[in-house]
Amino acid sequence: MELYFLGTGAGIPSLQRNVSSLAIRFMQRGSKQWLFDCGEATQHQILQTPISLSKIDKIFISHLHGDHIFGLPGIIGSRSFQGAESKLTIYGPKGLQSFVETALKTSSTYLKYPIEFVEVTQSGPLFNEKGITVEVLELEHVMPCYAYKVVEDDKPGELLVEKLKALNIAPGPSYQKIKRGESITLDDGRIINGQDFVGMPQKGRSLVIAGDTKPVDNMVEFSKGVDLLVHEATFLQDKSKHAKSYGHSTALEAAHLAAQASVKMLILTHISSRYVGVDDKIIKETHSAFENTIVAHDLMHYIV
Amino acid sequence: MELYFLGTGAGIPSLQRNVSSLAIRFMQRGSKQWLFDCGEATQHQILQTPISLSKIDKIFISHLHGDHIFGLPGIIGSRSFQGAESKLTIYGPKGLQSFVETALKTSSTYLKYPIEFVEVTQSGPLFNEKGITVEVLELEHVMPCYAYKVVEDDKPGELLVEKLKALNIAPGPSYQKIKRGESITLDDGRIINGQDFVGMPQKGRSLVIAGDTKPVDNMVEFSKGVDLLVHEATFLQDKSKHAKSYGHSTALEAAHLAAQASVKMLILTHISSRYVGVDDKIIKETHSAFENTIVAHDLMHYIV
Repeated sequence: MELYFLGTGAGIPSLQRNVSSLAIRFMQRGSKQWLFDCGEATQHQILQTPISLSKIDKIFISHLHGDHIFGLPGIIGSRSFQGAESKLTIYGPKGLQSFVETALKTSSTYLKYPIEFVEVTQSGPLFNEKGITVEVLELEHVMPCYAYKVVEDDKPGELLVEKLKALNIAPGPSYQKIKRGESITLDDGRIINGQDFVGMPQKGRSLVIAGDTKPVDNMVEFSKGVDLLVHEATFLQDKSKHAKSYGHSTALEAAHLAAQASVKMLILTHISSRYVGVDDKIIKETHSAFENTIVAHDLMHYIV
Repeated sequence: MELYFLGTGAGIPSLQRNVSSLAIRFMQRGSKQWLFDCGEATQHQILQTPISLSKIDKIFISHLHGDHIFGLPGIIGSRSFQGAESKLTIYGPKGLQSFVETALKTSSTYLKYPIEFVEVTQSGPLFNEKGITVEVLELEHVMPCYAYKVVEDDKPGELLVEKLKALNIAPGPSYQKIKRGESITLDDGRIINGQDFVGMPQKGRSLVIAGDTKPVDNMVEFSKGVDLLVHEATFLQDKSKHAKSYGHSTALEAAHLAAQASVKMLILTHISSRYVGVDDKIIKETHSAFENTIVAHDLMHYIV
């Protein structure tokens, strides 16, 4: 999974950071692309990446603040203008559909493709589709807000061909059964237990992308052991009261969560524009709690 | 009047041109600023100019297509976020208010300042305020669309002080009367006709900013003699049928209008993204009809 950080700032755009959006490209699935949040000018940021509007088939919205949704009407229109005809599914809290539909109707935007809106109302599984599961957790912000977890199915272990060949078991239809771990009887009478000839299953990659939130206990379980946690860090500790009042987290609070959940990597985003050029300071604040931390920047490319 | 071209492209943003917006800064009026159209990421473009959101007190919308209005919710929210408390007046066609209000309500955007919406429904004068008149003309597009004319009041002629001094008329209260062109009798009995001691009035500057439109006969009279006509040129002559079908103009059609209206300068904008790096070609097409033509580019600064 390739991540493109399209907007890593909080509230309003600055010259350094655009408002929230993150794209994932699934290279092993026909370059399918998903978008998480869509602040104003997300489509402008996309122009500087390999992301293509017509290949985005799902958009996940964490919550309805303007810096997370005001780019939707434009990107939806441009996707049609560029010729997309495939369905677009938009997941998000109640109110999203009427916002988008009002914008499209006001602007007489005619779409060549259908949009499906899926209202997200509570924690729980969202769907499992073509080997990927998406799950939702309700966060604690000043309005309903959600984290999304993306988990690939585990891949079955590979057939240990060399081991089979060493026993003079020739390739053929029996290989399929062995790969599935079944027991088979060979022509010469030997009984083969498939499980002895299959490698370890490969764990599917997993990541959690959190929306705006103050620290939430349930995030520890939700994020347990994921390869990557993308979490907001609107403030540093000097503004921890601000963070609490406005339903946000500090970088250190995100790091504590990362440590408690034993995630493999933490990427901090949604950084207030007051913290320009102080990535080092942000990292320093987090390191006492969790070491594997990166501060996201616009157009950052990260592979999970 | 200083113009900042914030977006000079048509339909969808490209790396070269953003969607429509144009700011005017009135240096002689406390740096007051007006915006004409507000496509997505207009506030992002403004970050690269001396325009300040809190000083924008009027926004004029030509029509409701997304590339002219999708930047409104964001800019309105950011203006408040940056501390503006002064009223913002938005002029535009019916439908604008409900689009903006739905966006602000959906996103729970709280504003520290009031917004007044003025619905533009027909050709005619819009207002005269502090020495500036704004007038509207209905255009011909695929939806209701308007051109705005901005005209400064003429400035009265300056008092010819040297001429008065040469006649030994000393500065004093009489100078005010003379400046107003009144006749006065001096202490020594001489009668002075004020009109003989006042220079020529200075004509107020004027410009027309047209929205999307096919050629409209009334634009000739509406734009007569203005210092600057800002006009769309979505297409070149090779796509003149396209232009007609979609309610747009070609560069040559805009140039014909400029010539017929005897404007002093024509700036072409709203250029289709198919014409990248061919400004010379655009200018060449217009020169047979009108010479004083510029092709706008993003962040272009022009003083009227």
